This record gives sequence, structure tokens and C-alpha cells, in this order.
Amino acid sequence: MARYVDLTAEEQRAELARLREEHAAFKARGLALNMARGKPASDQLDLSLPLLDVLRSDSDLTSEDGTDCRNYGVIDGIPEAKRLMAAMLDDDPENVIVLGSSSLTAMYDAMARCLDFGTGGGAPWCTLPAVRWLCPVPGYDRHFAVCEALGIEMIPVPMGADGPDMDLVERLVAEDEAVKGIWCVPKYSNPGGVTYSDEVVRRLAAMECAADDFRIFWDNAYAVHHLFDDAADQDRLLDIADTCVEAGVPDRYLKFASTSKVTLPGAGVAALAASPEICDEIRAQMGAQVIGYDKINQLRHARFLRDAEGIAAHMRGHAAILRPKFALVQAKLHAALDEAAVATWSDPRGGYFVSFDGMPGTAARTVALAREAGVTMTGAGATWPYGRDPEDANIRIAPTLPPLEELDEALDVFACCAKMAALEALLAAE
Amino acid sequence: MARYVDLTAEEQRAELARLREEHAAFKARGLALNMARGKPASDQLDLSLPLLDVLRSDSDLTSEDGTDCRNYGVIDGIPEAKRLMAAMLDDDPENVIVLGSSSLTAMYDAMARCLDFGTGGGAPWCTLPAVRWLCPVPGYDRHFAVCEALGIEMIPVPMGADGPDMDLVERLVAEDEAVKGIWCVPKYSNPGGVTYSDEVVRRLAAMECAADDFRIFWDNAYAVHHLFDDAADQDRLLDIADTCVEAGVPDRYLKFASTSKVTLPGAGVAALAASPEICDEIRAQMGAQVIGYDKINQLRHARFLRDAEGIAAHMRGHAAILRPKFALVQAKLHAALDEAAVATWSDPRGGYFVSFDGMPGTAARTVALAREAGVTMTGAGATWPYGRDPEDANIRIAPTLPPLEELDEALDVFACCAKMAALEALLAAE
Repeated sequence: MARYVDLTAEEQRAELARLREEHAAFKARGLALNMARGKPASDQLDLSLPLLDVLRSDSDLTSEDGTDCRNYGVIDGIPEAKRLMAAMLDDDPENVIVLGSSSLTAMYDAMARCLDFGTGGGAPWCTLPAVRWLCPVPGYDRHFAVCEALGIEMIPVPMGADGPDMDLVERLVAEDEAVKGIWCVPKYSNPGGVTYSDEVVRRLAAMECAADDFRIFWDNAYAVHHLFDDAADQDRLLDIADTCVEAGVPDRYLKFASTSKVTLPGAGVAALAASPEICDEIRAQMGAQVIGYDKINQLRHARFLRDAEGIAAHMRGHAAILRPKFALVQAKLHAALDEAAVATWSDPRGGYFVSFDGMPGTAARTVALAREAGVTMTGAGATWPYGRDPEDANIRIAPTLPPLEELDEALDVFACCAKMAALEALLAAE
Repeated sequence: MARYVDLTAEEQRAELARLREEHAAFKARGLALNMARGKPASDQLDLSLPLLDVLRSDSDLTSEDGTDCRNYGVIDGIPEAKRLMAAMLDDDPENVIVLGSSSLTAMYDAMARCLDFGTGGGAPWCTLPAVRWLCPVPGYDRHFAVCEALGIEMIPVPMGADGPDMDLVERLVAEDEAVKGIWCVPKYSNPGGVTYSDEVVRRLAAMECAADDFRIFWDNAYAVHHLFDDAADQDRLLDIADTCVEAGVPDRYLKFASTSKVTLPGAGVAALAASPEICDEIRAQMGAQVIGYDKINQLRHARFLRDAEGIAAHMRGHAAILRPKFALVQAKLHAALDEAAVATWSDPRGGYFVSFDGMPGTAARTVALAREAGVTMTGAGATWPYGRDPEDANIRIAPTLPPLEELDEALDVFACCAKMAALEALLAAE
């Protein structure tokens, strides 16, 4: 065997025929496997079951500042929850607003507020002829869905090994005042697993923006989601808040995080951090929408996770479950694909995804073949704005949900399908 | 003594001097009492403490349909939560969307979706030159704040003994296509305690609206909040859904409710009910904002409250605590004010408020005098759009939060202040 591109057409046809038989055999087994969404596995959720015992009917339900957490009130969170989320957001508790259970909702609401009310004294964005947004690609499909729903035009920006292409970002924000912001998953990015370099963070803070109210939506979803326990094996990220303050643009960023992949997804606590001025603005704008988020759940989480060290200890439990899965992805993909040389993929040190790039023009076909064989992948194109990957190359692999043995099988199917799609493309091009 | 209007100016001055001494004595005591917000009292919250024991680390956290409630997903609620909230919303579970912990947020979000995306195939309201909303007055200040924040122009409509002035409502909706909806708290209304008559409900469903996408925001916040246990002493409300279906406008209404004043405010479960078409529309529009709301809390509530009978039994506990407070309000106000004849007030059979109408031009002064003496009331004007009560007469009394002995004291202060303000007004008019 050799690289597929170096095979003769006849050899390619023979290899494709062999793979088709393999694929037919997978189909015959009636598999139902899923590598589509970044969901924690059942044994990860078990780690957080003690959360449910933290507050009982005989518990003290009073927060540190004397608030009865059972009743209405406290729009921006109880003190211990602010402190907890500040640890996750790498910020000061007084710059934190604790929200509901979902950071996606937090981000949607933040963007909707900019549209409806404006930010930093600027006009409501909905009154402008156009609002554009920079979207590093490959990126997170739900980010793109927020922009699309709210009518914000998305501009893809390629991701490199240390963050988005900053030459392009700097040019776009300087020349077009309709460019109002950028999505960033700055640590263990979705899906590439990239952590922004210090230089990228500094350039984001220092760049000249035509729009005074330009906003970095800093979705630090995987801030504490390391795969390895040793600090030397963990990515570290320069704080965007400090960096923006130093650059003289303290209002430029909004940080988001949640405990969704720390405790129980959907039943966790989300929060944002921003400058004191922007926090004041948000509290005022939020007042029409909410009296106060779930303080009982805030208290439950604060008492369960406690502080940065408590979070880190808890996350080591997640890492122990996830490490073998991510290792398996690397081992299986290398074994199946190295020789054929029709794909590359990321090898992240944290987060929830592996970003896979097949040969151009093969991603949709690969996903379709996998589905035929009973393996659900994230839809091809999902990692691009409007679901349109111009290369049709990128596929997001989400290895966390299936048990190891199912993941093993799903990766066999996936690799087979990627190779089939590559050979079909090569043969069609001849 | 006699009615204040029948007193001579000299008698009025003497009475005012006496009341000023009384007021000074209250001030000297350094009171800190609160009748401002519709918050449950601590002993009401105690009724729901067992809620915290329903789910523990060893509980089955699987919903009826097999969903692991710990993980992501299920945008519109688990089946048992839909059934529970259907009982509260007087609707079918399949027409229910279970949301986060706040019906205020549910209503804000619903209105924002109409603005951003439109409803029923109509244009997004934010693209229209004007959007107007009918606001029965006196009404709920947070409803008005939602409209004001979202730039919707409010038109006050007087409330009568059986609901809003329907002649006026019918005229306004027929002649102005910019009138897109109406706020309704149809049962034990905030603050008047009014329950809409069957005729009012039927007219709301049957009226001709210039706007095809006219929406009734049916905030049934006090659906199960009776003060009396005997069905004969409870208000009943015609179902808006059935009535709209019969009238051939099945998409006209959105019902809202929550468990906020049933279990723990802010840590409860909110929901809406609408026609199948509108539910589909909302689920599709919500998809960009949320993956799924807190299913653990949904499960906790469904297992705690169980069904309509479980809710009713639980609410009888609330009623036992609230009944003496509402009775005290009536007794104290009658004792203090009947003779002076300077005010009228509601005597509701449920809900959270008593609506007080002083002499025109005295509400703001009464609230200010009460504050001086250490009693916080809802701000005068709060029950009107933009905080502007043209008569300056209405004050919302919220008797639920203070313990009985504090409420007793607060009512003494309040009655004293209302009488002072009345006398000041009478003397100024001479």
C-alpha cells in the first residue's frame, strides 16, 4: 500500500472495492453509534451526582451575604457563585454576572441586547444597515446559528495553529465599521482544540477597530477542560480582560463560561465577565427580562465545587475518563489513515473535539457514508457559517459520548468512509 | 368624625395635625417594613423544602421517555414536566413548552422573538414603523417594563370588575393594525385581583383585529393561587385556548405560568402553552438560544408536585398562611379608612395583591410618607405604563412577605399616610 494519490487508477478501484465490502459489512451489523455532539458520557455525569446531595430540606439556604436563596431577587448572582464563576472565568468576582444554566443562552441574550439596545453608548445594532461578525473557521455551529438567527452577516476567518488569522482580522475590523465583533473559543477551541497564543490575544486587544463598540465574544467553554493533569501538559491562555485593559479598550470583551461540561449539562450555572461599565450596562438591560436566576442552583454549585482547586480536582475526574477516548481517536486514525495520506486531524490537549480535514470535496460524502453504516457524525459544513464549508473538507469528531468500545467501532466505520470518499474523489478527478 | 370631605377646613387641619403626630411617632420607632413586592413569606417557602429531597445522588434521573435528565437536550421539556405545567396552564401537555425558571423571562423572550422574527408568518415587528400594546390598568409593572425596554408603545385600558374595558379594546384593535397585543393577568389580576368573566374572554377571542398577528399574552400567574379552599369561594376562568379555537383564531394567545409562587421563586419552572402551530414556531425560533432548559429541576418539580391535585394540595398550604394576611388588610383598612371615606380597595379571593385607590393626587405623597416612616410600598404609578398614573391614585399593596405582626404595623403606618395625604390634598384645594 501507499499514499492513495500515488496509486494507479486500477489500484484505487481495487482498494475502493475492498472498502465497499467493509462498509457493507458495517451496514449489515445495524450499528447505531454517535460521534456528533459534544456531550459528556454517562460516567462523567456520575462524577457530579453528589451535587444533588449538597442542598437538602434541612440545609442552610442562606448565601454569604444573608440572602434567602429560596426567594426572588439578586439579578447578578450570590457572592459565592460569583466567586466560583470568577475562578472559571479568570476574573474578579465583582466583574462577574451569574446567569441561568446555559452559556449559549447567555451569548444569544448578550448579542440580542446589543441589537435591541446597543452597547457602550452606541446605536442599537438593529438600527444599522448591516452588522457583520468575524467567525474563525472551523468553528462552533451554535455560535453561527446565533448570528444567523439574529440576522448578523458572518465572515469566515481561517484558524491557524495559534488562533485566527490576525492579519486578516486586523484588516477587516479596521476597514469596515459594520464589523461589530468576533466569536472566539480561545482555549481548546471547538473543533480544532487550538489555544490562542499570547500574541494573538494581544493583537485582538490592540487592533484598531472602525467600530467603537466592537465586541470580542470570548466563549471560554473549555477553560478548565484539560485532558492531562500535569500543568506542563496543559494549555494556558492570556487573560483577555487584563490585556484589553492594558490596551486601553477595557469594554471590548465579554467572557462566557458555564459548568455545563463540569457538572450536569443543562442543569449547571452559566456566567459572563466584563468591565465594570459593561456589567452595569448589562444589569440595567437585563432588568426587563429577569428578576434573578436560580440562586438555589448557584448555591448548590458553589458549595459543591467550592473554588479553583475544587474545580481542578473535579475536572481531573473528567480527564481520566476522556483521555483514553482522545488517545483512541489518535491511535485509530493514524493506524487507518496514515498510509493513505488523505486526511489530517488535530490532537488537542483539552476540550471536546478533534477537527478532521479530509480531502477537499469529501466531507459531506464521508458523513453520508458513515450515516448509512449507522454512525452519526456532526453534519459536514457545520463548522462553517451557514453550514457552507467551501472546501467540503472539515468534519468535527466528538469522541466523548460513546463508551470506549463503541467509539472504537465508530472510528473503524468513520475511517473506512473517509477513505472511500477520498478514493471516489480521486477516481472522479481522473 | 365624618367623611373628610364633609369636615370643615379647621376640622381637617386638626385631624391632619393629629395624624402628623402619629406619623412622627412611627418615624421615631425606626421601622423597616415592606409591602412592596409580591414575594412569598419565609413560612411559605418552608412548604417547598421537601422539594430539595426529591432528587438525590441515588435517584433515578431518567424521565418517563428514557431521557437522561443529567445531559444536554430536550428543547421543550420532559414529558412529566409538560404534564405538570399543562395542569397549571389548563391545557394539553403537547401544547406546552417548558422553559427556564422565570415566566417573566419567558414573556420577555416571547415578545423579543415577535420583534426579531415575527409570528404567524407576519413581518418581524422590529421592521414595522410602530408596535402598540394594550395594557389594562392598573397592571403589572414588570409587564410594562418589558414593553418599554423593547420599544413597544403602551396604551392603557381601564380594568373593570370583570376584566378590561372590552368596548375600548375592541375599538383599538379594530382600527389600528399597529396594535399587536394585550397583556392579561386573567385570574386574580395584579394588582386588582380581578378574574376575567366568561364574556370578556369570549370577546377577546371573537374581536376583529386589524393585525392578523395580534397576540394575547395571557399571564396566568395566579392560576392556582386561591385564598380559599372551597371551590365555591374560588374564581374560575374560561380557557382562552378553547375559546380562541372556537372563535377560529387558534394562534391568538400565548399562555404563561410558573411555579415561582408555588415552590421556590427563581428556582422554579416556567412554561408556556400555545397552539400546535405557534409551538412549532417557538421551538424553531428558540433553537438558536437554547439547547434545553434545566431538566433536573423539571424532574424535581414533576415528582414533587405530581399533578393538578398535588398542586392544589400544596397551594392549600400557601392559602392557610396568606388568608389571615389578606383578612388583616381588609380589617385594618376598613377600621382606619371607612369613616374618612378617602379610599377604596379590592378584596380579592386569590393572587398576591390588594389594589388601593386613594383620592386623586395622593398616591405619590402617600408612598413618600410611608417611606419616611419606614414602610416601603410599590412606587406610586408603578401600576401604569411608563410609571404614570394620570390620577396619581393607585397603590399596590403586597401583604404576603411580612409576618402578620409586621403587616399589622405596616398597615397602621400606611393608613395614617393615606389619610394625611388626603387631608393635605383637601386643604390644598380649598
